[in-house]
Amino acid sequence: MSSLLEAFDNPNPERRYTIEFTFPEFTSLCPKTGQPDFATIVIWYVPGPRCVELRSLKHYFWSFRDQGIYMEPVTNQILNDLVTLCDPVEMEVISRFNIRGGIDHEITASYQREDEEGVSF
Amino acid sequence: MSSLLEAFDNPNPERRYTIEFTFPEFTSLCPKTGQPDFATIVIWYVPGPRCVELRSLKHYFWSFRDQGIYMEPVTNQILNDLVTLCDPVEMEVISRFNIRGGIDHEITASYQREDEEGVSF
Amino acid sequence: MSSLLEAFDNPNPERRYTIEFTFPEFTSLCPKTGQPDFATIVIWYVPGPRCVELRSLKHYFWSFRDQGIYMEPVTNQILNDLVTLCDPVEMEVISRFNIRGGIDHEITASYQREDEEGVSF
Amino acid sequence: MSSLLEAFDNPNPERRYTIEFTFPEFTSLCPKTGQPDFATIVIWYVPGPRCVELRSLKHYFWSFRDQGIYMEPVTNQILNDLVTLCDPVEMEVISRFNIRGGIDHEITASYQREDEEGVSF
Amino acid sequence: MSSLLEAFDNPNPERRYTIEFTFPEFTSLCPKTGQPDFATIVIWYVPGPRCVELRSLKHYFWSFRDQGIYMEPVTNQILNDLVTLCDPVEMEVISRFNIRGGIDHEITASYQREDEEGVSF
Amino acid sequence: MSSLLEAFDNPNPERRYTIEFTFPEFTSLCPKTGQPDFATIVIWYVPGPRCVELRSLKHYFWSFRDQGIYMEPVTNQILNDLVTLCDPVEMEVISRFNIRGGIDHEITASYQREDEEGVSF
Amino acid sequence: MSSLLEAFDNPNPERRYTIEFTFPEFTSLCPKTGQPDFATIVIWYVPGPRCVELRSLKHYFWSFRDQGIYMEPVTNQILNDLVTLCDPVEMEVISRFNIRGGIDHEITASYQREDEEGVSF
Amino acid sequence: MSSLLEAFDNPNPERRYTIEFTFPEFTSLCPKTGQPDFATIVIWYVPGPRCVELRSLKHYFWSFRDQGIYMEPVTNQILNDLVTLCDPVEMEVISRFNIRGGIDHEITASYQREDEEGVSF
Amino acid sequence: MSSLLEAFDNPNPERRYTIEFTFPEFTSLCPKTGQPDFATIVIWYVPGPRCVELRSLKHYFWSFRDQGIYMEPVTNQILNDLVTLCDPVEMEVISRFNIRGGIDHEITASYQREDEEGVSF
Amino acid sequence: MSSLLEAFDNPNPERRYTIEFTFPEFTSLCPKTGQPDFATIVIWYVPGPRCVELRSLKHYFWSFRDQGIYMEPVTNQILNDLVTLCDPVEMEVISRFNIRGGIDHEITASYQREDEEGVSF
Repeated sequence: MSSLLEAFDNPNPERRYTIEFTFPEFTSLCPKTGQPDFATIVIWYVPGPRCVELRSLKHYFWSFRDQGIYMEPVTNQILNDLVTLCDPVEMEVISRFNIRGGIDHEITASYQREDEEGVSF
Repeated sequence: MSSLLEAFDNPNPERRYTIEFTFPEFTSLCPKTGQPDFATIVIWYVPGPRCVELRSLKHYFWSFRDQGIYMEPVTNQILNDLVTLCDPVEMEVISRFNIRGGIDHEITASYQREDEEGVSF
Repeated sequence: MSSLLEAFDNPNPERRYTIEFTFPEFTSLCPKTGQPDFATIVIWYVPGPRCVELRSLKHYFWSFRDQGIYMEPVTNQILNDLVTLCDPVEMEVISRFNIRGGIDHEITASYQREDEEGVSF
Repeated sequence: MSSLLEAFDNPNPERRYTIEFTFPEFTSLCPKTGQPDFATIVIWYVPGPRCVELRSLKHYFWSFRDQGIYMEPVTNQILNDLVTLCDPVEMEVISRFNIRGGIDHEITASYQREDEEGVSF
Repeated sequence: MSSLLEAFDNPNPERRYTIEFTFPEFTSLCPKTGQPDFATIVIWYVPGPRCVELRSLKHYFWSFRDQGIYMEPVTNQILNDLVTLCDPVEMEVISRFNIRGGIDHEITASYQREDEEGVSF
Repeated sequence: MSSLLEAFDNPNPERRYTIEFTFPEFTSLCPKTGQPDFATIVIWYVPGPRCVELRSLKHYFWSFRDQGIYMEPVTNQILNDLVTLCDPVEMEVISRFNIRGGIDHEITASYQREDEEGVSF
Repeated sequence: MSSLLEAFDNPNPERRYTIEFTFPEFTSLCPKTGQPDFATIVIWYVPGPRCVELRSLKHYFWSFRDQGIYMEPVTNQILNDLVTLCDPVEMEVISRFNIRGGIDHEITASYQREDEEGVSF
Repeated sequence: MSSLLEAFDNPNPERRYTIEFTFPEFTSLCPKTGQPDFATIVIWYVPGPRCVELRSLKHYFWSFRDQGIYMEPVTNQILNDLVTLCDPVEMEVISRFNIRGGIDHEITASYQREDEEGVSF
Repeated sequence: MSSLLEAFDNPNPERRYTIEFTFPEFTSLCPKTGQPDFATIVIWYVPGPRCVELRSLKHYFWSFRDQGIYMEPVTNQILNDLVTLCDPVEMEVISRFNIRGGIDHEITASYQREDEEGVSF
Repeated sequence: MSSLLEAFDNPNPERRYTIEFTFPEFTSLCPKTGQPDFATIVIWYVPGPRCVELRSLKHYFWSFRDQGIYMEPVTNQILNDLVTLCDPVEMEVISRFNIRGGIDHEITASYQREDEEGVSF
C-alpha cells in the first residue's frame, strides 16, 4: 500500500547523485494459484526534491505479503508508487523472481523526468 | 512447437520495460548422432502489445526434448516463434550449450521492430 | 573532521590518471537510534594539483566512529571535504551500507571540475 | 593446420547473430624452449555465408599440440585461418595463456569486413 | 631498471590487436617506513612496431624488490619505461596494492599515441 | 500444520540410504513483533518404513507463513512432526535464518531411533 | 537399461583405490506428471575385479531419458545395476535433483561387500 | 558488559540440539594504539536450561565499541560471560579479526560442562 | 618415464610432515582414439628418507604428453614410480580428468609403508 | 631471524584454546636461482605459557625477504623457532607456495608437546 511510504527532504538537492536499495525478502502470492512468490527487488534512483525513507519502504514491501499480484504489474506498481512519492530525476525498479517451473524471471522498469534529456539504461 | 505458446495482454503498454527469462533445463537431440544436447536458454525482451505466458513457455521448451535440431537453427527458431507470438519492441535469445568435445558453444540472436531506431546489443 | 585530511603534491601532474581507495571498515552511528552503522567506502578520482595522503584519510574515516550522521549526507560530506582538500579533476564517492531491516543501501555521489567537459560516470 | 577446418552454410543468413566457442584445452610448444604452453581460446563471430563446423574446429585446435609457436602469432593465425574459411562479418579471437614465470598473458585480435561500418571491440 | 627490458618486432603489425599481462607478485619497499608493499600489476596495450618480451618484463618487475618507491610514481614510471621501450599505439598500467591500514589502493595510468584519435579508458 | 504432511512406503527398506531436502523459501512471523522471518530449512534423514512426500512437505512449509513462532521451537516442531510422520532411522533439521539486527542464526536438531546404536552428528 | 553397461578388468587389483564419476546431465520423467526431471549423478567406488567402462555408462544414463521413474528408486536401481556389473568393494551413488516446487532433493545410497569390515560413509 | 545479556528458558530441554550465531559487525579498540579493530564473532552452543536472547546479545556486542581490549582476552571473556549466563552443555566462541599488518588472526575458545563426557573440538 | 625423476635427502627426517603438489597441466593421449586427455594431478605424501625434486617432477609429467595410456593405470603408475623413487611413509595420488562425454572422472590411489600402523584415507 | 620474535604471557592459561594467523605476503629467495618465491603461511596453535606477539611475527616474516632458503626447510624452521619461543601445547605451520613451473606446492609441519596424548593432524 502506497500510503505506508514516507519521504524526507533531499539533503543535497544541488548535486546529482544516486541511491540504490536491494531488498532480498520480497514475497507475494500468485493470483491464479495462491502459491507464494519470492523476489529480490532493487531500486535505483537519482533523487529530486525528496528521498525515500528506508523504514517506511520496508513496511511498504511487507504489505505485499498477502496480496495476489502478477510479476509484471507489481514491478510497474512499485515504480509508480515511488515516483509519485518523491518525484525523482530518474528511477529504475528490478524484480528478480525465484525460479518457478524451472524458469527464472526478471523484470526491469525505469522512469525519467520529462525535463531531463538523456538515455534510460 | 510454437502452437504451445500463449500470450497475455501487456499490463503496462504505456511504458518501455524489460522482461528476462532464464531456462537452465533445455534439452534436444543432435540430428547427426541422436545424442542429447543440453543448454541454458535466456530470453530478454521489451514487450509490445502482448507478453509471453510463463507456463506455456515451459511446455514449448519441453517440446524440443525429442527433436533432432542443430544449435544455430534452434536459437533462431525460438526467436522467430516468440516474435510472431507477441510482437515485441526488441527481443534477444541466448543459448548456452554444454561443453561437447571440449568446446563450449553459445549463440545469440536478436530482433528489433523496424519502427524502432537504436542499436541492437 | 576534515582538518585531519592531508594532501601531497601530485607527482605526475602532466598525465591524467586515476586513484581508487576502498575502505571496508567505515562505521558511524544512526542519529535517530544511536545504533552503529557499517559501510564500505570507495573513493575514485583523477588527481589535480594534489593527492590524498593515505594515512590521514584513515584517521579522517575513524573520526566518524562516534558521530551520528545519516547515510545520504555522510556520502556528500566526504565528497565535499576531499574536493576542497585536493581540487581533483573528477571524483566519485560510493558508500555501501550493511543490510538494515533486510535492505541493502548504496549511495554514489560524483564531482567534475567545471572546466572539464565530458560525462560523469 | 587450416586444411582441417570445415564450414557449413549459415542456416539464418538473413539475420545478424553471434556464435561464441570456448576451448579450454589448447596446448602448443614454446619454440625457444620446447616446453608446453596451455591456453583457453575464445572465438566470437557474426557469421557471414558460412559457419565453422564444431568437430573440425576441435581437430584444428589439436593440430597445434606438437607445433612450436609463439603466443602472439598463434592468435593472429587462428583469426586469419577462420576468416579465410567462412568470411564472417566480424570475428574476435582471445587467447588466455596459463601463467608462466608468474605472469598471465592474454592476446585479443579482431577482424571486421570492410563493407561493415562500426567499431571493433 | 628499464635497462632490463627487451622488445621484439611485432609479428602482426598490420592488425590492431591487444596484449595483456597480469603480474600478481610485484613487491617494493615503502620509502618512508621501509616496509614491504605488495601489488598486482596489469599491463594492457595495443602493440606498435615492437612487443614487450615476457622474460625481460619479469626481471624488470623483480628489480623493484629492494627499491623504496611510492605507489603513484611507480605506476607512472612503469608506463613511461614501457612506452619508451616499444612505442605502443595505446597502453594502460593498473597497480592494485594490498590493503594497508584497512585501505585498498589501486592506480591506473594510460597512454595514447598522439596520432591516434579516440578516447582513453 | 502436521496434518498436511503425507508419506509413502519406502521403496528400498532393505538398504540404509539417505534423503536430503533443502527449502530456501521458508517464512514465518516473529511472535513478538509480527515482522516476517525468512529461513532456509534443510532436512536430512535415513528413511525407515515411510518416506516424506515432497509436495505435501511444500504445503506443510507454506502453512507457517502466517504463524507467529520463535526460531528454536519451530526447528524442533518440524523435527517432531516429521519423525511422527515417517518413523525414520535418523533425521536432522537445520534452520538457517536470515540476518536480523546484524546477527545470523542457525539451529540444528537431530533424532535417532532408540534401537540404533551410533553417534548423532 | 543395465544391459547397456560394460566392464573391463581392474588393471590394479592388488591395490585398494577409488574411482569417482560425476554426470551432470541426467534426465528422466516424473511417473505421475510426465514432466522432465534433471539430476547430477555422482558414483564413487573402490573397484573389485572389474571397472565400469565410461562410454557404456554414458549410454546407460541416456537410457533413462524416456523412463518415468521416482527419485528414490532410480538412485537405488543405479547402485544395484553397477554392483551387479562389477562387484565393487564399496560403492556410493548420489543423485542431486534440480529444485522442484522450491525444494532441492538429494539421495545417497551406498553398498559394501560383506567380507569387508568397516564403516559406510 | 555482561549485565546487558538476557536469557530465556530452553523451549526443548529434552533434546540435545545446537544454536549458532554469526555477528560480522564486532568492533573494539586496540588497548595499545587506540585504533579500531573489527571482527566476526561466531557462537555455537548446545543449550542447557537457558538460551541466549538475540537482541540482548546484539547490545552486549555493541558495548565493546569503546573498550580497549586485546584479541585473546576478548574471546575468552565472551565465552565466560555466556557460560555464566545460560549454563550450556557445550559452547564455542570464534573471533575472526580483520587483517592487521598483513596478518589475519582467528581465536577459538570452547567450553564443555564437566558432567559431559566427550571430546572438545 | 620414471628415469626422469630425481630425489633429494629429506632435510627434516626427524619430523613427520606432509608435502603436497598440484599439477593442473597434465595431458596424455587416449590409447583407443588417440585423442588428448587433460587432468589435474595432486600428490600428497609424508616424506621418508628422500623428497621428490620439483623440476624433475615437471619433466616426468611432461613425458606423458605423447603416451597413449588409460586413466586408471596412469594414476597407479605415478604412485608406483614415486614410491620407488623416495620411499615415503604415506603417499596419495589424485587424478581429476576433464569432462569427456558429459562425465567427470577422478581416480585416487594411496600407499602406506608396511611398518606404519594406521588408516589409509 | 628468530631473535625478532617476541612473546607475551598467555592471558587464559587455564583453558585450552586455539590461535590461528594467516600471512599471505611471505617472500624469500630460491637458493639455487636467486629468484623470488611467494607463499601464504598459516600458523595454528594451542598456547602454552606464552603467546606469539603479532607485530614481532610480522618482522620475523619480513626477515626472510633476502634469504635464500628451500621450501621444505623454511617450513620446519618457522615451526622450530615458534615452538622454542612460546612452548605451545600443539602447533602447526602450513606454507602454500605460489605456482612454479606449473606446480603448486604446500608443506605442513606440526608439533605436539610430549606430555600431551592424542593424535597429530
